[in-house]
Amino acid sequence: MSNVSFDTIQRAYRDRVEAALECYLAAADAPPKRLIEAMRYACLNGGKRLRAMLLYASGEAVNADPGLLDTAACAVEMIHAYSLVHDDLPAMDDDDLRRGKPSCHIAYGEATAILAGDALLTLAFEILATNSTTPADVPRRLQMVRCLARAAGTAGMTGGQSLDLEAVGRTLSREHLATIHQRKTGALIKACVQMGGLSGDASSSELAALEQYAQHLGIAFQIVDDILDEVSTTATLGKTSGADRARNKPTYPSIIGLEASKQLAEDLYRQAIDCLDTLAKNAYTLRQLAEMVVHRTY
Amino acid sequence: MSNVSFDTIQRAYRDRVEAALECYLAAADAPPKRLIEAMRYACLNGGKRLRAMLLYASGEAVNADPGLLDTAACAVEMIHAYSLVHDDLPAMDDDDLRRGKPSCHIAYGEATAILAGDALLTLAFEILATNSTTPADVPRRLQMVRCLARAAGTAGMTGGQSLDLEAVGRTLSREHLATIHQRKTGALIKACVQMGGLSGDASSSELAALEQYAQHLGIAFQIVDDILDEVSTTATLGKTSGADRARNKPTYPSIIGLEASKQLAEDLYRQAIDCLDTLAKNAYTLRQLAEMVVHRTY
Repeated sequence: MSNVSFDTIQRAYRDRVEAALECYLAAADAPPKRLIEAMRYACLNGGKRLRAMLLYASGEAVNADPGLLDTAACAVEMIHAYSLVHDDLPAMDDDDLRRGKPSCHIAYGEATAILAGDALLTLAFEILATNSTTPADVPRRLQMVRCLARAAGTAGMTGGQSLDLEAVGRTLSREHLATIHQRKTGALIKACVQMGGLSGDASSSELAALEQYAQHLGIAFQIVDDILDEVSTTATLGKTSGADRARNKPTYPSIIGLEASKQLAEDLYRQAIDCLDTLAKNAYTLRQLAEMVVHRTY
Repeated sequence: MSNVSFDTIQRAYRDRVEAALECYLAAADAPPKRLIEAMRYACLNGGKRLRAMLLYASGEAVNADPGLLDTAACAVEMIHAYSLVHDDLPAMDDDDLRRGKPSCHIAYGEATAILAGDALLTLAFEILATNSTTPADVPRRLQMVRCLARAAGTAGMTGGQSLDLEAVGRTLSREHLATIHQRKTGALIKACVQMGGLSGDASSSELAALEQYAQHLGIAFQIVDDILDEVSTTATLGKTSGADRARNKPTYPSIIGLEASKQLAEDLYRQAIDCLDTLAKNAYTLRQLAEMVVHRTY
Protein backbone atom coordinates (compact mmCIF):
# COMPACT_ATOMS: atom_id res chain seq x y z
CA MET A 1 0.00 0.00 0.00
CA SER A 2 2.99 2.35 0.34
CA ASN A 3 2.55 3.52 -3.25
CA VAL A 4 -0.91 4.85 -2.37
CA SER A 5 -0.85 8.24 -0.66
CA PHE A 6 -1.90 8.41 2.98
CA ASP A 7 -4.58 10.96 2.05
CA THR A 8 -6.18 8.42 -0.28
CA ILE A 9 -6.04 5.70 2.38
CA GLN A 10 -7.53 8.00 5.00
CA ARG A 11 -10.37 8.98 2.70
CA ALA A 12 -11.03 5.34 1.80
CA TYR A 13 -11.17 4.27 5.46
CA ARG A 14 -13.42 7.18 6.37
CA ASP A 15 -15.82 6.50 3.49
CA ARG A 16 -15.85 2.84 4.40
CA VAL A 17 -16.73 3.26 8.09
CA GLU A 18 -19.31 5.93 7.30
CA ALA A 19 -21.04 3.73 4.73
CA ALA A 20 -21.09 0.89 7.26
CA LEU A 21 -22.40 3.17 10.05
CA GLU A 22 -25.10 4.40 7.69
CA CYS A 23 -26.17 0.73 7.21
CA TYR A 24 -26.18 -0.07 10.90
CA LEU A 25 -28.01 3.03 12.09
CA ALA A 26 -31.69 2.66 11.35
CA ALA A 27 -33.20 5.03 8.79
CA ALA A 28 -33.74 8.49 10.28
CA ASP A 29 -37.53 8.22 9.93
CA ALA A 30 -37.82 4.93 11.87
CA PRO A 31 -39.62 5.18 15.22
CA PRO A 32 -38.74 6.44 17.74
CA LYS A 33 -37.89 9.18 15.26
CA ARG A 34 -36.30 11.64 17.67
CA LEU A 35 -34.02 9.05 19.28
CA ILE A 36 -32.80 7.65 15.95
CA GLU A 37 -32.19 11.17 14.63
CA ALA A 38 -30.12 12.04 17.70
CA MET A 39 -28.08 8.84 17.33
CA ARG A 40 -27.39 9.65 13.67
CA TYR A 41 -26.52 13.23 14.59
CA ALA A 42 -24.02 12.02 17.19
CA CYS A 43 -22.51 9.32 15.00
CA LEU A 44 -22.47 10.77 11.47
CA ASN A 45 -21.20 14.26 12.17
CA GLY A 46 -17.83 14.16 10.46
CA GLY A 47 -15.45 13.06 13.18
CA LYS A 48 -11.83 12.30 12.36
CA ARG A 49 -12.57 8.55 12.55
CA LEU A 50 -9.15 8.00 14.07
CA ARG A 51 -10.36 4.96 15.98
CA ALA A 52 -11.86 3.29 12.91
CA MET A 53 -8.67 4.04 10.96
CA LEU A 54 -6.48 2.49 13.66
CA LEU A 55 -8.68 -0.57 13.63
CA TYR A 56 -8.60 -0.92 9.84
CA ALA A 57 -4.86 -0.33 9.64
CA SER A 58 -4.14 -2.88 12.39
CA GLY A 59 -6.47 -5.39 10.80
CA GLU A 60 -4.86 -5.02 7.41
CA ALA A 61 -1.44 -5.53 8.94
CA VAL A 62 -2.62 -9.02 9.98
CA ASN A 63 -4.77 -10.14 6.99
CA ALA A 64 -8.09 -9.42 8.64
CA ASP A 65 -11.53 -10.36 7.34
CA PRO A 66 -12.91 -7.13 5.78
CA GLY A 67 -16.54 -7.68 6.89
CA LEU A 68 -15.59 -8.27 10.49
CA LEU A 69 -13.33 -5.19 10.38
CA ASP A 70 -16.23 -3.01 9.23
CA THR A 71 -18.44 -4.25 12.07
CA ALA A 72 -15.70 -3.74 14.66
CA ALA A 73 -14.87 -0.26 13.29
CA CYS A 74 -18.54 0.76 13.58
CA ALA A 75 -18.77 -0.62 17.12
CA VAL A 76 -15.74 1.41 18.21
CA GLU A 77 -17.02 4.60 16.56
CA MET A 78 -20.43 4.12 18.26
CA ILE A 79 -18.75 3.80 21.65
CA HIS A 80 -16.67 6.91 20.96
CA ALA A 81 -19.75 8.86 19.80
CA TYR A 82 -21.76 7.82 22.87
CA SER A 83 -18.94 8.91 25.18
CA LEU A 84 -18.81 12.37 23.58
CA VAL A 85 -22.59 12.80 23.89
CA HIS A 86 -22.55 11.92 27.60
CA ASP A 87 -19.32 13.87 28.32
CA ASP A 88 -20.84 17.03 26.80
CA LEU A 89 -23.94 16.91 29.06
CA PRO A 90 -24.50 19.84 31.46
CA ALA A 91 -23.89 17.58 34.49
CA MET A 92 -20.56 16.44 33.02
CA ASP A 93 -18.28 18.77 30.98
CA ASP A 94 -21.18 21.03 29.93
CA ASP A 95 -19.95 21.65 26.38
CA ASP A 96 -22.32 23.28 23.90
CA LEU A 97 -20.14 22.75 20.86
CA ARG A 98 -18.84 19.56 19.25
CA ARG A 99 -17.16 19.30 15.86
CA GLY A 100 -18.25 22.86 15.07
CA LYS A 101 -21.94 22.11 15.67
CA PRO A 102 -24.28 22.26 18.67
CA SER A 103 -23.68 19.30 21.01
CA CYS A 104 -26.30 16.55 20.93
CA HIS A 105 -28.14 17.78 24.05
CA ILE A 106 -28.29 21.32 22.62
CA ALA A 107 -29.78 19.99 19.38
CA TYR A 108 -32.13 17.35 20.88
CA GLY A 109 -32.49 18.11 24.58
CA GLU A 110 -30.88 16.39 27.53
CA ALA A 111 -33.28 13.46 27.88
CA THR A 112 -32.88 12.40 24.25
CA ALA A 113 -29.11 12.91 24.40
CA ILE A 114 -28.84 10.61 27.44
CA LEU A 115 -30.96 7.97 25.68
CA ALA A 116 -29.09 8.36 22.38
CA GLY A 117 -25.81 7.72 24.20
CA ASP A 118 -27.28 4.68 25.94
CA ALA A 119 -28.65 3.37 22.65
CA LEU A 120 -25.33 3.81 20.79
CA LEU A 121 -23.48 1.99 23.56
CA THR A 122 -26.00 -0.85 23.35
CA LEU A 123 -25.96 -0.96 19.54
CA ALA A 124 -22.16 -1.34 19.52
CA PHE A 125 -22.54 -4.67 21.34
CA GLU A 126 -25.56 -5.71 19.30
CA ILE A 127 -23.76 -5.38 15.98
CA LEU A 128 -20.72 -7.28 17.28
CA ALA A 129 -23.03 -10.10 18.33
CA THR A 130 -25.15 -10.21 15.21
CA ASN A 131 -24.94 -13.53 13.40
CA SER A 132 -21.87 -13.91 11.29
CA THR A 133 -21.67 -16.02 8.15
CA THR A 134 -18.89 -18.27 9.42
CA PRO A 135 -18.92 -20.26 12.67
CA ALA A 136 -15.21 -19.41 13.01
CA ASP A 137 -16.24 -15.80 13.63
CA VAL A 138 -18.26 -16.62 16.75
CA PRO A 139 -15.37 -16.86 19.24
CA ARG A 140 -13.66 -13.82 17.68
CA ARG A 141 -16.83 -11.78 18.01
CA LEU A 142 -17.27 -12.79 21.64
CA GLN A 143 -13.63 -11.82 22.30
CA MET A 144 -14.34 -8.45 20.66
CA VAL A 145 -17.36 -7.88 22.91
CA ARG A 146 -15.15 -8.57 25.92
CA CYS A 147 -12.30 -6.39 24.64
CA LEU A 148 -14.59 -3.46 23.85
CA ALA A 149 -16.58 -3.75 27.11
CA ARG A 150 -13.37 -3.75 29.17
CA ALA A 151 -12.04 -0.70 27.32
CA ALA A 152 -15.33 1.16 27.75
CA GLY A 153 -16.05 0.17 31.37
CA THR A 154 -14.76 1.10 34.83
CA ALA A 155 -11.22 -0.11 34.07
CA GLY A 156 -11.27 2.06 30.94
CA MET A 157 -13.28 4.95 29.62
CA THR A 158 -16.05 5.43 32.21
CA GLY A 159 -13.52 4.91 34.99
CA GLY A 160 -11.23 7.50 33.41
CA GLN A 161 -14.05 10.00 33.02
CA SER A 162 -14.97 9.51 36.68
CA LEU A 163 -11.35 10.08 37.79
CA ASP A 164 -11.20 13.12 35.50
CA LEU A 165 -14.26 14.64 37.19
CA GLU A 166 -12.75 13.95 40.62
CA ALA A 167 -9.51 15.69 39.53
CA VAL A 168 -11.11 19.05 38.71
CA GLY A 169 -9.46 21.76 40.81
CA ARG A 170 -6.88 19.38 42.31
CA THR A 171 -3.12 19.32 41.85
CA LEU A 172 -2.04 16.04 40.28
CA SER A 173 1.30 14.37 39.69
CA ARG A 174 2.24 13.60 36.11
CA GLU A 175 1.82 9.88 36.92
CA HIS A 176 -1.70 10.36 38.23
CA LEU A 177 -2.62 12.37 35.12
CA ALA A 178 -1.19 9.60 32.92
CA THR A 179 -3.35 7.02 34.72
CA ILE A 180 -6.49 9.08 34.10
CA HIS A 181 -5.71 9.52 30.42
CA GLN A 182 -4.67 5.92 29.96
CA ARG A 183 -8.21 4.98 31.03
CA LYS A 184 -10.15 7.86 29.53
CA THR A 185 -8.78 7.72 25.98
CA GLY A 186 -5.91 5.22 25.95
CA ALA A 187 -7.99 2.14 26.69
CA LEU A 188 -10.29 2.58 23.69
CA ILE A 189 -7.37 3.37 21.37
CA LYS A 190 -5.73 0.16 22.54
CA ALA A 191 -8.98 -1.76 21.98
CA CYS A 192 -8.96 -0.57 18.35
CA VAL A 193 -5.66 -2.27 17.55
CA GLN A 194 -6.64 -5.32 19.60
CA MET A 195 -9.90 -5.69 17.71
CA GLY A 196 -8.08 -5.13 14.42
CA GLY A 197 -5.72 -7.92 15.45
CA LEU A 198 -8.62 -10.19 16.48
CA SER A 199 -10.22 -9.73 13.05
CA GLY A 200 -7.23 -11.39 11.41
CA ASP A 201 -4.54 -13.92 12.14
CA ALA A 202 -2.22 -11.85 14.33
CA SER A 203 0.43 -13.86 16.20
CA SER A 204 0.77 -13.15 19.90
CA SER A 205 3.99 -11.20 19.29
CA GLU A 206 2.26 -9.12 16.60
CA LEU A 207 -0.63 -8.42 18.96
CA ALA A 208 1.84 -7.38 21.67
CA ALA A 209 3.59 -5.02 19.22
CA LEU A 210 0.27 -3.46 18.20
CA GLU A 211 -0.71 -2.98 21.85
CA GLN A 212 2.61 -1.37 22.69
CA TYR A 213 2.24 0.97 19.71
CA ALA A 214 -1.28 1.89 20.86
CA GLN A 215 -0.12 2.43 24.43
CA HIS A 216 2.39 5.11 23.38
CA LEU A 217 0.02 6.58 20.82
CA GLY A 218 -2.82 6.87 23.34
CA ILE A 219 -0.76 8.99 25.72
CA ALA A 220 0.63 11.10 22.85
CA PHE A 221 -2.92 11.66 21.60
CA GLN A 222 -4.02 13.02 24.96
CA ILE A 223 -0.97 15.26 25.37
CA VAL A 224 -1.63 16.76 21.93
CA ASP A 225 -5.29 17.23 22.91
CA ASP A 226 -4.19 19.13 26.00
CA ILE A 227 -1.74 21.26 23.98
CA LEU A 228 -4.38 22.10 21.35
CA ASP A 229 -6.90 23.05 24.04
CA GLU A 230 -4.30 25.53 25.28
CA VAL A 231 -2.99 27.02 22.00
CA SER A 232 -5.83 26.71 19.44
CA THR A 233 -8.95 28.73 18.74
CA THR A 234 -12.50 27.41 19.11
CA ALA A 235 -13.00 27.80 15.35
CA THR A 236 -10.01 25.55 14.54
CA LEU A 237 -10.89 22.91 17.15
CA GLY A 238 -14.63 22.73 16.46
CA LYS A 239 -15.10 22.58 20.24
CA THR A 240 -14.60 25.17 22.95
CA SER A 241 -10.87 25.94 23.30
CA GLY A 242 -9.37 26.74 26.69
CA ALA A 243 -12.12 24.60 28.25
CA ASP A 244 -9.69 22.64 30.44
CA ARG A 245 -8.19 25.79 31.91
CA ALA A 246 -11.64 27.35 32.40
CA ARG A 247 -12.77 24.23 34.28
CA ASN A 248 -9.50 24.13 36.23
CA LYS A 249 -8.69 20.66 34.87
CA PRO A 250 -5.15 19.36 35.27
CA THR A 251 -3.45 18.94 31.87
CA TYR A 252 0.05 18.09 30.64
CA PRO A 253 0.89 21.74 29.86
CA SER A 254 -0.35 22.82 33.30
CA ILE A 255 1.78 20.19 35.05
CA ILE A 256 5.00 19.94 33.02
CA GLY A 257 4.76 23.07 30.82
CA LEU A 258 4.02 23.55 27.14
CA GLU A 259 7.49 22.89 25.69
CA ALA A 260 8.07 19.75 27.76
CA SER A 261 4.62 18.51 26.70
CA LYS A 262 5.51 18.95 23.02
CA GLN A 263 8.79 17.11 23.52
CA LEU A 264 7.06 14.27 25.37
CA ALA A 265 4.53 13.85 22.54
CA GLU A 266 7.43 13.70 20.08
CA ASP A 267 9.25 11.06 22.14
CA LEU A 268 6.14 8.92 22.43
CA TYR A 269 5.59 9.18 18.69
CA ARG A 270 9.10 7.79 18.06
CA GLN A 271 8.53 4.99 20.55
CA ALA A 272 5.18 4.14 18.94
CA ILE A 273 6.56 3.78 15.43
CA ASP A 274 9.56 1.79 16.70
CA CYS A 275 7.09 -0.87 17.92
CA LEU A 276 5.94 -1.45 14.36
CA ASP A 277 9.30 -2.83 13.20
CA THR A 278 8.42 -6.30 14.45
CA LEU A 279 5.27 -6.61 12.33
CA ALA A 280 5.69 -8.93 9.36
CA LYS A 281 3.50 -6.88 7.02
CA ASN A 282 3.87 -3.32 5.86
CA ALA A 283 2.84 -0.93 8.63
CA TYR A 284 2.91 2.20 6.45
CA THR A 285 -0.62 3.25 7.42
CA LEU A 286 -0.07 2.72 11.14
CA ARG A 287 3.08 4.86 10.88
CA GLN A 288 1.22 7.62 9.06
CA LEU A 289 -1.62 7.49 11.60
CA ALA A 290 0.84 8.04 14.43
CA GLU A 291 2.30 10.98 12.53
CA MET A 292 -1.21 12.38 12.04
CA VAL A 293 -2.12 12.00 15.72
CA VAL A 294 0.96 13.80 16.98
CA HIS A 295 1.21 16.55 14.37
CA ARG A 296 -2.50 17.36 13.94
CA THR A 297 -3.76 20.89 14.44
CA TYR A 298 -7.34 20.06 15.53
CA MET B 1 -39.78 -28.40 43.13
CA SER B 2 -43.51 -28.11 43.80
CA ASN B 3 -43.06 -29.41 47.35
CA VAL B 4 -40.83 -26.42 48.15
CA SER B 5 -42.79 -23.28 48.98
CA PHE B 6 -42.64 -20.39 46.55
CA ASP B 7 -41.35 -18.15 49.35
CA THR B 8 -38.36 -20.43 49.80
CA ILE B 9 -37.68 -20.49 46.04
CA GLN B 10 -37.95 -16.73 45.80
CA ARG B 11 -35.54 -16.24 48.67
CA ALA B 12 -33.10 -18.74 47.18
CA TYR B 13 -33.14 -17.02 43.77
CA ARG B 14 -32.75 -13.60 45.33
CA ASP B 15 -29.83 -14.71 47.50
CA ARG B 16 -28.24 -16.39 44.53
CA VAL B 17 -28.35 -13.39 42.17
CA GLU B 18 -27.23 -11.05 44.93
CA ALA B 19 -24.24 -13.21 45.79
CA ALA B 20 -23.32 -13.33 42.09
CA LEU B 21 -23.76 -9.57 41.68
CA GLU B 22 -21.56 -9.04 44.72
CA CYS B 23 -18.85 -11.09 42.97
CA TYR B 24 -19.13 -9.25 39.67
CA LEU B 25 -19.22 -5.74 41.09
CA ALA B 26 -15.72 -4.70 42.07
CA ALA B 27 -15.06 -4.15 45.76
CA ALA B 28 -16.50 -0.83 46.92
CA ASP B 29 -13.04 0.56 47.71
CA ALA B 30 -11.60 -0.11 44.21
CA PRO B 31 -10.76 3.01 42.18
CA PRO B 32 -12.57 4.99 40.90
CA LYS B 33 -14.14 4.71 44.36
CA ARG B 34 -17.11 7.00 43.81
CA LEU B 35 -18.15 5.35 40.56
CA ILE B 36 -17.94 1.82 41.94
CA GLU B 37 -19.88 2.87 45.06
CA ALA B 38 -22.64 4.38 42.92
CA MET B 39 -22.83 1.19 40.81
CA ARG B 40 -23.14 -0.92 43.94
CA TYR B 41 -25.74 1.46 45.37
CA ALA B 42 -27.80 1.18 42.19
CA CYS B 43 -27.46 -2.58 41.86
CA LEU B 44 -27.51 -3.92 45.41
CA ASN B 45 -30.38 -1.93 46.84
CA GLY B 46 -32.94 -4.64 47.46
CA GLY B 47 -34.97 -4.73 44.28
CA LYS B 48 -37.61 -7.41 43.78
CA ARG B 49 -35.24 -9.25 41.39
CA LEU B 50 -38.20 -10.23 39.27
CA ARG B 51 -36.08 -10.36 36.11
CA ALA B 52 -33.46 -12.62 37.66
CA MET B 53 -36.21 -14.86 39.02
CA LEU B 54 -37.87 -15.15 35.61
CA LEU B 55 -34.52 -16.03 34.10
CA TYR B 56 -33.73 -18.68 36.73
CA ALA B 57 -37.21 -20.19 36.55
CA SER B 58 -37.13 -20.36 32.74
CA GLY B 59 -33.66 -21.85 32.78
CA GLU B 60 -34.59 -24.48 35.29
CA ALA B 61 -37.61 -25.46 33.18
CA VAL B 62 -35.12 -26.41 30.41
CA ASN B 63 -32.20 -27.95 32.36
CA ALA B 64 -29.96 -24.91 32.17
CA ASP B 65 -26.32 -24.72 33.17
CA PRO B 66 -26.34 -23.06 36.64
CA GLY B 67 -23.17 -20.99 36.12
CA LEU B 68 -24.37 -19.53 32.86
CA LEU B 69 -27.75 -18.76 34.48
CA ASP B 70 -26.06 -16.79 37.26
CA THR B 71 -24.09 -14.72 34.75
CA ALA B 72 -27.16 -14.06 32.62
CA ALA B 73 -29.25 -13.15 35.68
CA CYS B 74 -26.61 -10.63 36.79
CA ALA B 75 -26.41 -9.12 33.29
CA VAL B 76 -30.18 -8.61 33.20
CA GLU B 77 -30.26 -7.08 36.69
CA MET B 78 -27.41 -4.72 35.73
CA ILE B 79 -29.32 -3.55 32.66
CA HIS B 80 -32.45 -3.05 34.76
CA ALA B 81 -30.49 -1.13 37.43
CA TYR B 82 -28.82 1.12 34.83
CA SER B 83 -32.20 1.93 33.26
CA LEU B 84 -33.64 2.99 36.62
CA VAL B 85 -30.63 5.22 37.35
CA HIS B 86 -30.93 7.01 34.00
CA ASP B 87 -34.76 7.15 34.08
CA ASP B 88 -34.66 8.85 37.49
CA LEU B 89 -32.33 11.67 36.29
CA PRO B 90 -33.67 15.25 36.43
CA ALA B 91 -33.68 15.48 32.61
CA MET B 92 -35.76 12.28 32.40
CA ASP B 93 -38.44 11.36 34.98
CA ASP B 94 -36.82 13.47 37.73
CA ASP B 95 -37.52 11.03 40.56
CA ASP B 96 -35.79 11.57 43.90
CA LEU B 97 -36.87 8.30 45.43
CA ARG B 98 -36.20 4.71 44.40
CA ARG B 99 -36.92 1.63 46.48
CA GLY B 100 -37.51 3.83 49.51
CA LYS B 101 -34.08 5.47 49.28
CA PRO B 102 -32.65 8.56 47.55
CA SER B 103 -32.21 7.93 43.81
CA CYS B 104 -28.64 7.40 42.61
CA HIS B 105 -28.20 11.00 41.39
CA ILE B 106 -29.47 12.35 44.73
CA ALA B 107 -26.97 10.18 46.60
CA TYR B 108 -23.98 10.60 44.25
CA GLY B 109 -24.70 13.58 42.00
CA GLU B 110 -25.82 13.63 38.39
CA ALA B 111 -22.44 13.16 36.71
CA THR B 112 -21.61 10.03 38.72
CA ALA B 113 -25.14 8.68 38.22
CA ILE B 114 -24.85 9.04 34.44
CA LEU B 115 -21.47 7.29 34.48
CA ALA B 116 -22.66 4.57 36.88
CA GLY B 117 -25.53 3.79 34.50
CA ASP B 118 -23.14 3.69 31.54
CA ALA B 119 -20.75 1.46 33.45
CA LEU B 120 -23.48 -1.00 34.54
CA LEU B 121 -24.74 -1.26 30.94
CA THR B 122 -21.19 -1.96 29.78
CA LEU B 123 -20.48 -4.45 32.57
CA ALA B 124 -23.58 -6.47 31.64
CA PHE B 125 -22.02 -7.22 28.25
CA GLU B 126 -18.56 -7.72 29.68
CA ILE B 127 -19.66 -10.47 32.05
CA LEU B 128 -21.65 -12.24 29.32
CA ALA B 129 -18.52 -12.24 27.15
CA THR B 130 -16.07 -13.30 29.83
CA ASN B 131 -14.38 -16.58 29.05
CA SER B 132 -16.45 -19.58 29.86
CA THR B 133 -15.09 -22.95 30.86
CA THR B 134 -16.63 -24.87 27.95
CA PRO B 135 -16.26 -24.02 24.24
CA ALA B 136 -19.93 -25.00 23.84
CA ASP B 137 -20.84 -21.92 25.85
CA VAL B 138 -19.29 -19.49 23.36
CA PRO B 139 -22.15 -19.41 20.79
CA ARG B 140 -24.75 -19.33 23.58
CA ARG B 141 -23.02 -16.39 25.20
CA LEU B 142 -22.84 -14.50 21.91
CA GLN B 143 -26.56 -15.19 21.37
CA MET B 144 -27.22 -13.82 24.85
CA VAL B 145 -25.29 -10.63 24.07
CA ARG B 146 -27.44 -10.19 20.96
CA CYS B 147 -30.69 -10.98 22.78
CA LEU B 148 -29.93 -8.60 25.66
CA ALA B 149 -28.68 -5.80 23.38
CA ARG B 150 -31.82 -5.99 21.25
CA ALA B 151 -34.06 -5.90 24.31
CA ALA B 152 -32.16 -2.93 25.76
CA GLY B 153 -31.74 -0.92 22.54
CA THR B 154 -33.91 1.22 20.29
CA ALA B 155 -36.26 -1.65 19.43
CA GLY B 156 -36.68 -2.28 23.16
CA MET B 157 -36.05 -0.39 26.37
CA THR B 158 -34.35 2.85 25.25
CA GLY B 159 -36.80 3.11 22.34
CA GLY B 160 -39.71 2.65 24.75
CA GLN B 161 -38.37 5.26 27.15
CA SER B 162 -38.02 7.69 24.24
CA LEU B 163 -41.62 7.05 23.10
CA ASP B 164 -42.74 7.41 26.71
CA LEU B 165 -41.11 10.86 26.96
CA GLU B 166 -42.74 11.89 23.67
CA ALA B 167 -46.15 10.76 24.99
CA VAL B 168 -46.20 13.08 28.02
CA GLY B 169 -49.27 15.32 27.83
CA ARG B 170 -50.67 13.57 24.74
CA THR B 171 -53.82 11.48 24.37
CA LEU B 172 -52.91 7.94 23.30
CA SER B 173 -54.90 4.97 22.09
CA ARG B 174 -54.70 1.79 24.13
CA GLU B 175 -52.75 0.21 21.23
CA HIS B 176 -50.15 2.98 21.21
CA LEU B 177 -49.74 2.69 24.97
CA ALA B 178 -49.28 -1.08 24.62
CA THR B 179 -46.53 -0.51 22.02
CA ILE B 180 -44.67 1.82 24.36
CA HIS B 181 -44.88 -0.59 27.27
CA GLN B 182 -44.00 -3.60 25.15
CA ARG B 183 -40.70 -1.86 24.42
CA LYS B 184 -40.10 -0.10 27.70
CA THR B 185 -40.58 -3.06 30.04
CA GLY B 186 -41.88 -5.97 27.96
CA ALA B 187 -38.76 -6.44 25.84
CA LEU B 188 -36.43 -6.99 28.81
CA ILE B 189 -38.91 -9.33 30.52
CA LYS B 190 -39.04 -11.35 27.31
CA ALA B 191 -35.23 -11.35 27.12
CA CYS B 192 -35.15 -12.91 30.60
CA VAL B 193 -37.05 -16.02 29.53
CA GLN B 194 -35.15 -16.16 26.23
CA MET B 195 -31.81 -16.05 28.03
CA GLY B 196 -33.06 -18.63 30.51
CA GLY B 197 -33.97 -20.81 27.54
CA LEU B 198 -30.59 -20.20 25.87
CA SER B 199 -28.80 -21.33 29.05
CA GLY B 200 -30.30 -24.79 28.67
CA ASP B 201 -31.58 -27.16 26.04
CA ALA B 202 -34.96 -25.58 25.27
CA SER B 203 -36.65 -26.88 22.10
CA SER B 204 -37.95 -24.25 19.70
CA SER B 205 -41.54 -24.95 20.82
CA GLU B 206 -40.53 -24.56 24.47
CA LEU B 207 -38.78 -21.28 23.66
CA ALA B 208 -41.89 -20.08 21.83
CA ALA B 209 -44.07 -20.99 24.84
CA LEU B 210 -41.74 -19.13 27.20
CA GLU B 211 -41.78 -16.06 24.94
CA GLN B 212 -45.56 -16.08 24.71
CA TYR B 213 -45.79 -16.35 28.49
CA ALA B 214 -43.39 -13.41 28.87
CA GLN B 215 -45.29 -11.36 26.29
CA HIS B 216 -48.54 -11.55 28.32
CA LEU B 217 -46.71 -11.14 31.61
CA GLY B 218 -44.84 -8.04 30.42
CA ILE B 219 -48.06 -6.20 29.59
CA ALA B 220 -49.71 -7.36 32.82
CA PHE B 221 -46.68 -6.13 34.77
CA GLN B 222 -46.98 -2.66 33.29
CA ILE B 223 -50.74 -2.44 33.85
CA VAL B 224 -50.24 -3.37 37.50
CA ASP B 225 -47.48 -0.74 37.73
CA ASP B 226 -49.88 1.87 36.40
CA ILE B 227 -52.62 0.77 38.82
CA LEU B 228 -50.26 0.85 41.80
CA ASP B 229 -49.01 4.32 40.84
CA GLU B 230 -52.66 5.40 40.99
CA VAL B 231 -53.86 3.65 44.17
CA SER B 232 -50.81 3.19 46.43
CA THR B 233 -48.92 5.44 48.78
CA THR B 234 -45.31 6.52 48.32
CA ALA B 235 -44.37 4.62 51.48
CA THR B 236 -45.76 1.32 50.13
CA LEU B 237 -44.24 1.75 46.65
CA GLY B 238 -40.80 2.95 47.73
CA LYS B 239 -41.00 5.47 44.89
CA THR B 240 -43.14 8.55 44.41
CA SER B 241 -46.80 7.51 43.96
CA GLY B 242 -49.09 9.43 41.63
CA ALA B 243 -46.00 10.38 39.61
CA ASP B 244 -47.57 9.42 36.26
CA ARG B 245 -50.63 11.56 36.87
CA ALA B 246 -48.47 14.46 38.11
CA ARG B 247 -46.38 14.24 34.94
CA ASN B 248 -49.52 13.89 32.81
CA LYS B 249 -48.33 10.51 31.49
CA PRO B 250 -50.86 8.31 29.73
CA THR B 251 -51.52 5.11 31.74
CA TYR B 252 -53.91 2.17 31.48
CA PRO B 253 -56.21 3.54 34.23
CA SER B 254 -56.27 6.96 32.53
CA ILE B 255 -57.21 5.42 29.16
CA ILE B 256 -59.50 2.47 29.96
CA GLY B 257 -60.35 3.14 33.62
CA LEU B 258 -59.26 1.46 36.85
CA GLU B 259 -61.69 -1.48 36.91
CA ALA B 260 -61.10 -2.38 33.24
CA SER B 261 -57.34 -2.21 33.89
CA LYS B 262 -57.66 -4.66 36.78
CA GLN B 263 -59.72 -7.03 34.64
CA LEU B 264 -57.22 -6.81 31.76
CA ALA B 265 -54.32 -7.68 34.09
CA GLU B 266 -56.30 -10.66 35.33
CA ASP B 267 -57.03 -11.86 31.76
CA LEU B 268 -53.37 -11.54 30.76
CA TYR B 269 -52.34 -13.49 33.86
CA ARG B 270 -54.61 -16.38 32.81
CA GLN B 271 -53.25 -16.28 29.26
CA ALA B 272 -49.67 -16.24 30.54
CA ILE B 273 -50.06 -19.33 32.72
CA ASP B 274 -51.96 -21.16 29.95
CA CYS B 275 -48.80 -20.89 27.80
CA LEU B 276 -46.88 -22.95 30.33
CA ASP B 277 -48.93 -26.11 29.72
CA THR B 278 -46.78 -27.05 26.73
CA LEU B 279 -43.51 -27.10 28.72
CA ALA B 280 -42.23 -30.61 29.41
CA LYS B 281 -40.89 -29.79 32.85
CA ASN B 282 -42.66 -28.50 35.92
CA ALA B 283 -43.40 -24.79 35.55
CA TYR B 284 -44.52 -24.27 39.14
CA THR B 285 -42.15 -21.35 39.74
CA LEU B 286 -43.05 -19.59 36.47
CA ARG B 287 -46.73 -19.89 37.44
CA GLN B 288 -46.08 -18.48 40.90
CA LEU B 289 -44.04 -15.63 39.44
CA ALA B 290 -46.94 -14.64 37.20
CA GLU B 291 -49.22 -14.72 40.21
CA MET B 292 -46.76 -12.52 42.11
CA VAL B 293 -46.45 -10.00 39.27
CA VAL B 294 -50.18 -9.54 38.89
CA HIS B 295 -51.22 -9.61 42.52
CA ARG B 296 -48.31 -7.65 44.04
CA THR B 297 -48.98 -4.55 46.13
CA TYR B 298 -45.71 -2.68 45.46
